[in-house]
Amino acid sequence: MEHRPEDFMRHAIDLAVENVRGGSGGPFGAVVVRAGEVIATGVNQVTSTNDPTAHAEVVAIRAACRTLNSFQLRGCEIYTNCEPCPMCLGAIYWARLARFYYACSRQNAAAIFFDDQFIYDELPLAPGERSIPGVRMLSTEGLAAFEAWTTSDRRTPY
Amino acid sequence: MEHRPEDFMRHAIDLAVENVRGGSGGPFGAVVVRAGEVIATGVNQVTSTNDPTAHAEVVAIRAACRTLNSFQLRGCEIYTNCEPCPMCLGAIYWARLARFYYACSRQNAAAIFFDDQFIYDELPLAPGERSIPGVRMLSTEGLAAFEAWTTSDRRTPY
Repeated sequence: MEHRPEDFMRHAIDLAVENVRGGSGGPFGAVVVRAGEVIATGVNQVTSTNDPTAHAEVVAIRAACRTLNSFQLRGCEIYTNCEPCPMCLGAIYWARLARFYYACSRQNAAAIFFDDQFIYDELPLAPGERSIPGVRMLSTEGLAAFEAWTTSDRRTPY
Repeated sequence: MEHRPEDFMRHAIDLAVENVRGGSGGPFGAVVVRAGEVIATGVNQVTSTNDPTAHAEVVAIRAACRTLNSFQLRGCEIYTNCEPCPMCLGAIYWARLARFYYACSRQNAAAIFFDDQFIYDELPLAPGERSIPGVRMLSTEGLAAFEAWTTSDRRTPY
């Protein structure tokens, strides 16, 4: 029986430990909870599934959305054994989660050579000044899809 | 025949327009290219697949990794009709892409009510001060998985 935040976090930590022991990915686990009930879990599967986006939080969010048949997770919380990286934090925003709980920090992650802090440092830079540079082009032609969107009667806002 | 950056970007824009017309998602398309060759494409599928992480860039990166049977895309570039949101930018870093090209800006996206700029503004805040707050707990217990990782002989670094 899991009821307390500590229990959900221990669940996430245990998933992360098992993931390392099983050799299936990085030391990361996550649990999505709604009203004291586990909706879905996830572990890091980057190297075992050849998917650089398969971080524990993303895997758990995708699984929770499948379970709830929804592209949003309003009212849900996520427990992760490590502070979410910018990709996962972005996913948390798009999923409209209510809150997240974390144990290790991005500094802890950096100490075992995961790039979270580096990516946090890169994001505020202008696109052209980043180590992976962004180059803008066709800025007027590019608006075509946005114009189609604003006039479409088939759109589902999110 | 696509050879020039403009052609790849027009491909991404066309994918985005078609995605809107088909009613299958937001006005976003992306193309992953290596050495002048299209490796994979992606369109936004958030609402049609109930997956808040299914942004065009994430979909294209995942598809490119499947095609190349790799969890990294070194030497590849991505063309997207809109500046990547923090989630997608994080994915670009984890995939180790060389560069990205974009047409619309995050300000253009905000004008049609996509939250990219808002999320960019949230990221630099301390976890507890964000609109989706992060709460740290069990910071010592949480290190268990990281300790398992540093001593594991089954790990694949990434």
